[in-house]
Amino acid sequence: MINRIFTILVFVGVPLTVVASIMHWSSITMFVICSVTIIAISSFMGRATESLAIVSGPRIGGLLNATFGNAVELIISIFALQAGLIGVVLASLTGSVLGNLLLVGGLSFFLGGVKFKRQKFSIHDARHNSGLLVFAVIVAFVIPEIFSMSMNEEKTLQMSVGISIIMIVLYLAGLFFKLVTHRGVYVHDEPTLDGEHEEPEWSKKKALGILLLSTIAVAYVSENLVHTFEAVGEQFGWSELFIGVIIVAIVGNAAEHSSAILMAMKNKMDVAVEIAIGSTLQIAMFVAPVLVLISLFMPTAMPLVFTVPELVAMATAVLLTISVSNDGESNWFEGLTLLAAYLIMGIGFYLL
Amino acid sequence: MINRIFTILVFVGVPLTVVASIMHWSSITMFVICSVTIIAISSFMGRATESLAIVSGPRIGGLLNATFGNAVELIISIFALQAGLIGVVLASLTGSVLGNLLLVGGLSFFLGGVKFKRQKFSIHDARHNSGLLVFAVIVAFVIPEIFSMSMNEEKTLQMSVGISIIMIVLYLAGLFFKLVTHRGVYVHDEPTLDGEHEEPEWSKKKALGILLLSTIAVAYVSENLVHTFEAVGEQFGWSELFIGVIIVAIVGNAAEHSSAILMAMKNKMDVAVEIAIGSTLQIAMFVAPVLVLISLFMPTAMPLVFTVPELVAMATAVLLTISVSNDGESNWFEGLTLLAAYLIMGIGFYLL
Amino acid sequence: MINRIFTILVFVGVPLTVVASIMHWSSITMFVICSVTIIAISSFMGRATESLAIVSGPRIGGLLNATFGNAVELIISIFALQAGLIGVVLASLTGSVLGNLLLVGGLSFFLGGVKFKRQKFSIHDARHNSGLLVFAVIVAFVIPEIFSMSMNEEKTLQMSVGISIIMIVLYLAGLFFKLVTHRGVYVHDEPTLDGEHEEPEWSKKKALGILLLSTIAVAYVSENLVHTFEAVGEQFGWSELFIGVIIVAIVGNAAEHSSAILMAMKNKMDVAVEIAIGSTLQIAMFVAPVLVLISLFMPTAMPLVFTVPELVAMATAVLLTISVSNDGESNWFEGLTLLAAYLIMGIGFYLL
Repeated sequence: MINRIFTILVFVGVPLTVVASIMHWSSITMFVICSVTIIAISSFMGRATESLAIVSGPRIGGLLNATFGNAVELIISIFALQAGLIGVVLASLTGSVLGNLLLVGGLSFFLGGVKFKRQKFSIHDARHNSGLLVFAVIVAFVIPEIFSMSMNEEKTLQMSVGISIIMIVLYLAGLFFKLVTHRGVYVHDEPTLDGEHEEPEWSKKKALGILLLSTIAVAYVSENLVHTFEAVGEQFGWSELFIGVIIVAIVGNAAEHSSAILMAMKNKMDVAVEIAIGSTLQIAMFVAPVLVLISLFMPTAMPLVFTVPELVAMATAVLLTISVSNDGESNWFEGLTLLAAYLIMGIGFYLL
Repeated sequence: MINRIFTILVFVGVPLTVVASIMHWSSITMFVICSVTIIAISSFMGRATESLAIVSGPRIGGLLNATFGNAVELIISIFALQAGLIGVVLASLTGSVLGNLLLVGGLSFFLGGVKFKRQKFSIHDARHNSGLLVFAVIVAFVIPEIFSMSMNEEKTLQMSVGISIIMIVLYLAGLFFKLVTHRGVYVHDEPTLDGEHEEPEWSKKKALGILLLSTIAVAYVSENLVHTFEAVGEQFGWSELFIGVIIVAIVGNAAEHSSAILMAMKNKMDVAVEIAIGSTLQIAMFVAPVLVLISLFMPTAMPLVFTVPELVAMATAVLLTISVSNDGESNWFEGLTLLAAYLIMGIGFYLL
Repeated sequence: MINRIFTILVFVGVPLTVVASIMHWSSITMFVICSVTIIAISSFMGRATESLAIVSGPRIGGLLNATFGNAVELIISIFALQAGLIGVVLASLTGSVLGNLLLVGGLSFFLGGVKFKRQKFSIHDARHNSGLLVFAVIVAFVIPEIFSMSMNEEKTLQMSVGISIIMIVLYLAGLFFKLVTHRGVYVHDEPTLDGEHEEPEWSKKKALGILLLSTIAVAYVSENLVHTFEAVGEQFGWSELFIGVIIVAIVGNAAEHSSAILMAMKNKMDVAVEIAIGSTLQIAMFVAPVLVLISLFMPTAMPLVFTVPELVAMATAVLLTISVSNDGESNWFEGLTLLAAYLIMGIGFYLL
């Protein structure tokens, strides 16, 4: 039923976006069309990911989702870098980190927790992710912020490039660790509950094809959406920072939202957590440093230096997520706590 | 024996306070009379709470105590707000957080640990509390501090009001979680040691009556005590910040001190921890935001913005408390560590 | 084989240092001779410590090593204080904290983890150490930093002295806890794997003698090394801060490096962790405050106030170490994460 509505929305929304873009419809109209279309496409991505997750296990499923979700962001950010909008790129990176940890994580914990009293997920993955979150946000983002305060621009950029290369190498090493040297090493700790043998909705091939097409469609619609932000911001009185941190993050991460929450409500918290935190790690440890390196070939180079409110919001979000999630269990109240933190930061960025 | 001394002190101290207040005795005399009287009344509150705890279980017992302890603070703070003493209110909120976490928590761990080699308490409650401590102090107090640095006064106040409402809602949701939806969910993890069937000292009715009378008496004596602070501060060379953070906290939280320590020395660490951390959470997530909202009807509105030393002291105290308590075990050395941190902060605020 | 090479290096290196010092050879030559000699002597210290560890158990063995490693640093720092080089002393304390946590800890986890898939160490010791790391770096170092910002020099020094005394008392209490009141209390939690009954390389007496002689030799050679830093720094373009934080730490802690890694590669992670973290704690909680107190009798008194980059580097290193180590397990990727953080900080201090 709801799937049929989303199917219609996609097959109406995408052509409508093309028409609106050619006919130069008003920004508000465009904003509404694009947002709804992206959410509809996201539901397809969610279903495709779920099918793949059943076929390939929770870890690969989670990785796939994070990849497809963040490909969109990477493409948008490259366009923004080309336009010299460094502030917007850093703000949307911040927004993705906050959105994935607090909003996606919060909604997954909350809605999953309303349905199930106690939900469990791999404590080893949670700890592995905790270490990387602290590394990425508390070390690799904080150090250039503080050190750049007594450095000139050139040295700040050198430091940013060095740190970016280290982050990418460590991120790839982390994949190697998870998928090769320590694949399945920590799994025997939890009881396997998958005796149910769920049937995937789509075959592996079909799911992959839909994922690919959806990603392309999301990228196209997102790009159109981005161009409406300035006009919409003026009309509603939103600052660029607020648009970057909150609006881009909510719409841009709709894919992760829908599939993580879908998984949480099916009690597959391992996948939900892998999407929310895995996606954050991919943004922080891979997308952000790659953008720093790409920016070297752009008109304006982007140092890895956030504003102080952005950095403090990310660092406190990481500490909260870790303290809430590192027992390998969740419930609705933990979800509500994450959502409340997101709301507080949203108010802050709105008023800034 | 000691109970009889305290009984005498209460029945001498309260009338003496009335006389001193009418006769306008010297501030130093008043200070000594009030302090001793409050400590004596606190012992009654401790005994009444203990009786109730036996009757109603550790969780309700702990909540009751935190409520009765902080009612006093709320009343004092409202008087102070009316007098426009925003700095003193924020300082005494800081002092309550530091005092409960480091001084009450430290003394409970230390004195309990001297008597018992290893003391255990619910690891689930500890983690639940950890998440809320990080939320309240690291997110909800830090965000307005940092964001207000580039905001005008009006926006700072708007942000404070928004955050305060979110905190109160989350605090009430937390009570709903603990007492309704997840009551007893995590209890079967620990072995029940209560086979002993302790007898309460007083009946439920009598205990409640004594609690109520003690609270009224404490409030009256505390108010008299507060008026001596300025003169005593001048005489001893104490700054307003030091009086707010250290003196108000020690005397104002004497009730929590005595009953938490009493519980710790009876090896009821669940109640002791619930008092120390639960009381901190009530101050941070309920009393502080309620005072922000009340201040809107007062001559001067109070934003939720502490001084940097106050905020750093609270944030580091939270990190220390969590790292010491989240294994669900305590010993005398962990208590000493908390006390040492309190002493360091005390030196800092004294010299500031 | 490798032991024979080290033996030759020691018996050539030490006399060569004496000759070079008398003949006033060039700084670069001196730098190379001293560095190689120290590393060679360190291998002796490592072997002696290992022998002692087998005889006296992991805890005493770890303590011994930390003591002998840091005696060198204490001696060098006293010479530096006498020369009024307060900045260098604080930088080398920072470097020792970073080097022990991230470099020694990282190499131990990485090289041990390459050989063994999962390495375990006492979770109780890890938590005990976590609490103290937070106390020392997050509380006792951060508080004077923040509070001194609105204090004059005299009050800053008073605060530093007060905090130093508290730290030393707590450090001694911690030893009393570990070795007297709670000796072996937490041991029964882990299975004893020492059924193998390893043979020590040297007798207790011989091992102690070699440790003592090595320490004296290391001290002598280190002192000569220190005098080359200025000239070497000029030649390579290194700032004083970089030399203090990175170079002094790497050479000065070579003893801990070699023996911790040796232990990690023999799967004795308890000793490796005790060396890395125990040595950090001894630097932060004992060597640093003792140097503050000693500096009172020196031409220039040293307050316990680091630069902001130093403090942020130490605080983030502590948070990363705790989040990586407090599950009582390690693997090569966790080691790589610590090393990556060290590298990032190294780049930062190099460019500063």
